[in-house]
Amino acid sequence: MTELLVAGGQVLRPDTTVERADVLVDQDSGDILAVDDPGELTGDDTLDASDGLVIPGLVNAHTHVAMTLLRGYADDKPLDAWLQEDIWPVEAELTPEDVRVGAELGLVEMIRSGTTALSDMYFHVDEIAAAVEESGLRAVLGHTAVTVAKDEAGARADMQASLDTALDLDGAADGRIKTTFQPHSLTTVGEEYLREFVPEAVEAGLPIHLHANETTDEVEPLVDEHGARPLEYADDVGLLGEDTFLAHCVHVDETEIDLLAETGTGAVHCPASNMKLASGMAPVQRLLDAGVTVALGTDGAASNNDLDMFDEMRDAAMVGKLAADDASAVPAGAVVEMATANGADLLGFESGRIEAGANADLAVLDLDAAHLTPAHDLVSHLAYAARGSDVCHTVCDGDVLMRDRDLTVFDERAVRDRASDRARALIDRAAE
Amino acid sequence: MTELLVAGGQVLRPDTTVERADVLVDQDSGDILAVDDPGELTGDDTLDASDGLVIPGLVNAHTHVAMTLLRGYADDKPLDAWLQEDIWPVEAELTPEDVRVGAELGLVEMIRSGTTALSDMYFHVDEIAAAVEESGLRAVLGHTAVTVAKDEAGARADMQASLDTALDLDGAADGRIKTTFQPHSLTTVGEEYLREFVPEAVEAGLPIHLHANETTDEVEPLVDEHGARPLEYADDVGLLGEDTFLAHCVHVDETEIDLLAETGTGAVHCPASNMKLASGMAPVQRLLDAGVTVALGTDGAASNNDLDMFDEMRDAAMVGKLAADDASAVPAGAVVEMATANGADLLGFESGRIEAGANADLAVLDLDAAHLTPAHDLVSHLAYAARGSDVCHTVCDGDVLMRDRDLTVFDERAVRDRASDRARALIDRAAE
Repeated sequence: MTELLVAGGQVLRPDTTVERADVLVDQDSGDILAVDDPGELTGDDTLDASDGLVIPGLVNAHTHVAMTLLRGYADDKPLDAWLQEDIWPVEAELTPEDVRVGAELGLVEMIRSGTTALSDMYFHVDEIAAAVEESGLRAVLGHTAVTVAKDEAGARADMQASLDTALDLDGAADGRIKTTFQPHSLTTVGEEYLREFVPEAVEAGLPIHLHANETTDEVEPLVDEHGARPLEYADDVGLLGEDTFLAHCVHVDETEIDLLAETGTGAVHCPASNMKLASGMAPVQRLLDAGVTVALGTDGAASNNDLDMFDEMRDAAMVGKLAADDASAVPAGAVVEMATANGADLLGFESGRIEAGANADLAVLDLDAAHLTPAHDLVSHLAYAARGSDVCHTVCDGDVLMRDRDLTVFDERAVRDRASDRARALIDRAAE
Repeated sequence: MTELLVAGGQVLRPDTTVERADVLVDQDSGDILAVDDPGELTGDDTLDASDGLVIPGLVNAHTHVAMTLLRGYADDKPLDAWLQEDIWPVEAELTPEDVRVGAELGLVEMIRSGTTALSDMYFHVDEIAAAVEESGLRAVLGHTAVTVAKDEAGARADMQASLDTALDLDGAADGRIKTTFQPHSLTTVGEEYLREFVPEAVEAGLPIHLHANETTDEVEPLVDEHGARPLEYADDVGLLGEDTFLAHCVHVDETEIDLLAETGTGAVHCPASNMKLASGMAPVQRLLDAGVTVALGTDGAASNNDLDMFDEMRDAAMVGKLAADDASAVPAGAVVEMATANGADLLGFESGRIEAGANADLAVLDLDAAHLTPAHDLVSHLAYAARGSDVCHTVCDGDVLMRDRDLTVFDERAVRDRASDRARALIDRAAE
């Protein structure tokens, strides 16, 4: 058994208190063995956290990681025009190799900023899985199915591909990869396909992830068509439940919030994307008050434009207060929980907590910085003052993926160069 | 004449285009001498910008720099309770030495994140001026006067102190320090004192800076009392004009927006603080459409909780879209102008632009980073993806204040240690 000691740091515990402690990791099982007073534990290898804050690895619960290739390609446009004029034409040109290097770039950025688990929605998922395997990170992957503007054969094939991908990839990378069945959204997948395939997914025991209620354009047509709120319709077709988590949930009313709570359906709040696309403000405090498990996601880098979960915590606290018209809403501790334990719970990983028995997924922040001085409250700093660049060590599944800001996985320079080259060529192809 | 060459970088020009160029700085006058094609210019000293983006030094147009001592001390509370229960009791204990070290810490953070000019509102202003002089930065300072809850003698003395401080300090630090007359706000300074002292300030040629329309609590009582909107009242007492800039302007109606435009009064948008305190969303796109000069400010570190102007650009673009319900509102180029040229214009400095004749106030960002890859659009990156930690060199008034992330001014370790000690002691005193 090889043991890693994360030594001398202040440690964020599951109750969002902070105490000075050492953390002992079993690198073979990938689990945390013990958390104890400084000096009580010894390991074969030591990660110095003496100027640091040890936190659970952050969980990015909704992203499209390969979209890093489109970071800054098109901004400042409404969702519809942005998708139809900019994003979809370029995505139509994406090759498997593009998706691979886009994913690699995104995973590098995640490791650098302390994220150790992600839930991804995209296509060419084998490429993303290969990048995740190489990265050492933990991920929930899936093929996202769309049926609108397809003939029946094409639509059914896409839904089947989502099922098959989820079944095939589950448990890959020594269990670091899990999967979800992924109908894209309630407006981009036809009712007949949901009624056919959702029961199959449920019967196969597959968790489900989809976009829901992101914009008013995803609400009004459904209300007109079904005479019910979108999440009432989702419930009717069997989509809600403890193994489902929905991205966005911006435009949800009280009935829908109650429905999420009653069914145990999770919500992934993506505040930066919702602001940047002017989608609206999710009622996060009301979701929390109702008992809904709320996690955080960056969404794709094209609508953010980074994958830094510290930005997401800050944005969630900030916009959560605006949405509630209450400065005490969505406090620092709540957003830290959303980005850690809540995310891990929705993704189905035993991570998100620094405690014996949990996955050894953690990040160490370097507190030796002007913008983190003084240190009245480190939980406040996590939410409001820290940023991805403060992370100096990242550990996932017991393996050190970044030590003293140097990555131990990937050839980062080569990944960045390939990504730049492929991004340029992609835009050129799309412009032809 | 000692000349500094900022060599090999991509340069953000005043029209928010980016081109590869060298920038030659006269370190004696502190001005930019020339911007030319790479290789055309030579200097006595060279600052390598070959992997970098050269931008005008950022302008933090509304802050309380010494409040870094209260970073993370009290969060997640409404403005009124936060001020009365947390901030004011602690501020009452602040000694001149506390203000000095709090200012030093804030100035260190600013240099690290590429800010070269600030507009500050506080007290013990001599201490802040001394810290600014040592820092090498440019600042507009002033003593903030409050008359509510004071007897007449005390109220008049505070207003006089604001006038005297502005007159005494103007031009200090070889012209790097300018000043403003600073009535705190329209609700915290009585009408009789505004009617007496504002004309004196105007006659003395002093610019004016105050808080205005930050919360609905600063609007409704004034409407009740004066039968007019707050900025109509401000205009009536002589506060508006080309030498005045107002912090916040969250709750301004169309009449007030027109009034700002007609009088040439500037607005400083503080999006992070307005979100964190749930004050509301300023109508930034409407202000811009009306022709108002809008700059950006962090406000104090206690309501932000950092002094990183990259966060402020991102927040301004994000919340500006929400406020306008339009994803094309407050685009990247606009927030970059707000944080540079607009800020310099309001503060009265010849900075905020990389062009011959302007102050040599600039920052260089290291673009060699995963979260800034690929490079489709560097202006987008400035607004949405970059962060203060990407700044590697900072120059103000021709002097290099940070080179390769090492400060050439202050003993940063000593400043941080003193700040931590004083912050702890301050809270202990306030708790007694």
